[in-house]
Amino acid sequence: MEGDPTLRLRVFDLNCWAIRYLSKRRQERVRLIGDTLRRESFDLVLLQEVWSERDYSDLKAKLGGCYPFSHYFRSGVIGSGLCVFSRFPILDTLLYQYSLNGYPYMLQHGDWFCGKPQRDCLEGLGGFAGAGMGVTTTLPPCSCQLHAEYCREKDAYLPHRLVQAWELAQFIRHTSKAADVVLLGGDLNMHPEDVGIRLLRGWTGLRDAFAEATRFEGCEDGCTLVPNNCFTVKAELLPFPLGIRIDYILYKAISSFTVKCEELKTTTGTAPGMDIPFSDHEAVMATLHIQRQGQAAGANLGTAEPTLVDVVTEARTEVGVGLRAAQRQRYSTGRMAVLALLLLLLQAVAALGALAGLAAGQPFPKLSFSLLAFLAIGVLLLATGLHLFHTMEVKMLQGTEEQMRMALRALQERP
Amino acid sequence: MEGDPTLRLRVFDLNCWAIRYLSKRRQERVRLIGDTLRRESFDLVLLQEVWSERDYSDLKAKLGGCYPFSHYFRSGVIGSGLCVFSRFPILDTLLYQYSLNGYPYMLQHGDWFCGKPQRDCLEGLGGFAGAGMGVTTTLPPCSCQLHAEYCREKDAYLPHRLVQAWELAQFIRHTSKAADVVLLGGDLNMHPEDVGIRLLRGWTGLRDAFAEATRFEGCEDGCTLVPNNCFTVKAELLPFPLGIRIDYILYKAISSFTVKCEELKTTTGTAPGMDIPFSDHEAVMATLHIQRQGQAAGANLGTAEPTLVDVVTEARTEVGVGLRAAQRQRYSTGRMAVLALLLLLLQAVAALGALAGLAAGQPFPKLSFSLLAFLAIGVLLLATGLHLFHTMEVKMLQGTEEQMRMALRALQERP
Repeated sequence: MEGDPTLRLRVFDLNCWAIRYLSKRRQERVRLIGDTLRRESFDLVLLQEVWSERDYSDLKAKLGGCYPFSHYFRSGVIGSGLCVFSRFPILDTLLYQYSLNGYPYMLQHGDWFCGKPQRDCLEGLGGFAGAGMGVTTTLPPCSCQLHAEYCREKDAYLPHRLVQAWELAQFIRHTSKAADVVLLGGDLNMHPEDVGIRLLRGWTGLRDAFAEATRFEGCEDGCTLVPNNCFTVKAELLPFPLGIRIDYILYKAISSFTVKCEELKTTTGTAPGMDIPFSDHEAVMATLHIQRQGQAAGANLGTAEPTLVDVVTEARTEVGVGLRAAQRQRYSTGRMAVLALLLLLLQAVAALGALAGLAAGQPFPKLSFSLLAFLAIGVLLLATGLHLFHTMEVKMLQGTEEQMRMALRALQERP
Repeated sequence: MEGDPTLRLRVFDLNCWAIRYLSKRRQERVRLIGDTLRRESFDLVLLQEVWSERDYSDLKAKLGGCYPFSHYFRSGVIGSGLCVFSRFPILDTLLYQYSLNGYPYMLQHGDWFCGKPQRDCLEGLGGFAGAGMGVTTTLPPCSCQLHAEYCREKDAYLPHRLVQAWELAQFIRHTSKAADVVLLGGDLNMHPEDVGIRLLRGWTGLRDAFAEATRFEGCEDGCTLVPNNCFTVKAELLPFPLGIRIDYILYKAISSFTVKCEELKTTTGTAPGMDIPFSDHEAVMATLHIQRQGQAAGANLGTAEPTLVDVVTEARTEVGVGLRAAQRQRYSTGRMAVLALLLLLLQAVAALGALAGLAAGQPFPKLSFSLLAFLAIGVLLLATGLHLFHTMEVKMLQGTEEQMRMALRALQERP
């Protein structure tokens, strides 16, 4: 970096809401996103909810000229929906699956099927050299999406989202040790003051581009789900007249670099110069200044440690609540499976008895008897499946709780 | 490291084969393992297949005095079976689930249920300071287990194991950048010359303690599954009169350190001084010398790059073979689901016709009609489930193939 000691990096982040057959005016919007990205030529584009590989291919074909490097993260039944376009080479990618992602039987929510949204890490935008600098710099940007929140008052998914926030934070800590700059963009499905986002920021030291930006332009309070957007569900936003902020660009410098957010923008209900929005979410666009410092700064945690202890303790308590709920569900599904099995055994004994001629005549009608047996088999299978699922859930929640306990001990033991 | 520039690290690795109700003489063997570990006092103990948390707790209670730090990795329905005991503090842990791990319907093999054996990373045995050295050193040892090989001639799991080997290698590359020494111990379920182990070693630069050891003592060729062990299945070892080597201790130094394997030992069919073995696998014990060098050595790949290109190409070809097999299975299960659905529809039409009195009299017996409907529903459900599973399999294999393609391009473009 002898020549020019500063790099200006323009980042675009958007939850595209591009679900085939379900999202309104999908193809039109994807075309619009592609046109805008081609015109604006950002350095790095992080997209979520591009569920169809066809849409990704279309975007890739359109953007090949200005974003020669791109990656689509494949996973799960439908895919992860995550993709990245970049002006700089993508040297390597790594996928990390969340261990918990909702419940398969909550069909109406569907997160479980959506490929367990991954945290993805693109290592080494080595293209810093290509940006006119003398030093190739490692910069792992992550694109991610956490479990959606469906009901804020009684949020059954909070423990799962906390496990995901913790795993994401751990993943960033472990993979970014040798990086110069860490960048994370995505729909985190958490409000800025939520325990999950405080945990993620505190445990990784990531800074919030919205809070740090010198200039801001866009929706009030930086909201990214606003009533002004024609695709948002107005009823869900009733308690929040301004909207909510759940899409973020977070960053930090690790070694001898500094990062500053010069400008942050969001779209405001419609795409710039258009009459429809890109998506039901607003796009977040940040201009970052990355500069080499004289001496190494050393890794630092973003939050003062006593506060961090409080945040981790709060998160651990919530995970504990989720753990006890999961243990109760494991117990009740196990009990239901045992009851169904007992009923089946009883029926088998009765049927054998009737066959052996112990009972006088035909004691029960054949049809109801068979229907009852089918019902018992169905309940047995279902309850066993759920029992196994909740057993896994209990294990993962226990594992996270223990990791948090270990983290707290390490924080408290530090001089 | 001003005082003593050398650290001698004694590592113990064993696949314990401790499956409740299934493994022979389990409790006796776990007791024996605990006694030996307490007597020998290694620095680091990596255990696999400790499937019962109760066994882990017993070991922990027994070993607390000489190994004050330990961790059990929870995951899946049964657990990961992996645990670690250490003389030095364990500062942090990270779990990474393999994206593919066999087939849920291969009940007789069971890998799928065994918590998707994880690659686990224990970051920072900061206790180097505790070993009398002036510098705290990061050393992430991994304990892992890959998918078992059930038939060498027609190994249907090879692509899955290659995906796992690749993911493990990627995980090590991404998490070890800031480490001084990387250590990996476990049952890799691969012979030393297999493409998966060549890929893992080539892509990470890890060295094989058996090949590098100055002194070796134990089974011929370092085998860890030997006919001499009373618990091994002799028929499986018929083509290998000496046995096979599938348990490894691998290591590398990254920054300004060097690691040398001074001594490697295996048990030889029985536990030292006993008449029964620890397990059906032999234990592997390495004594490593870790030394600080004057200048930084820089990360190096273990294999010369032209060879590495060949290895990655070979692995990619195998993954491609697996991909095409998965695509065929996805197609045939999809077709079966459609056929079952058609049959159901046909029956519905026939039933409605009969109800509307279109057919003269009762055209088919009720019982066979209902049985056929139940059969069709069963096939529909099963085929749909399998179709979804193979869809995920296809996505993961495609993702790995693409990552390998990207790696090959990067290797070939290097000056």
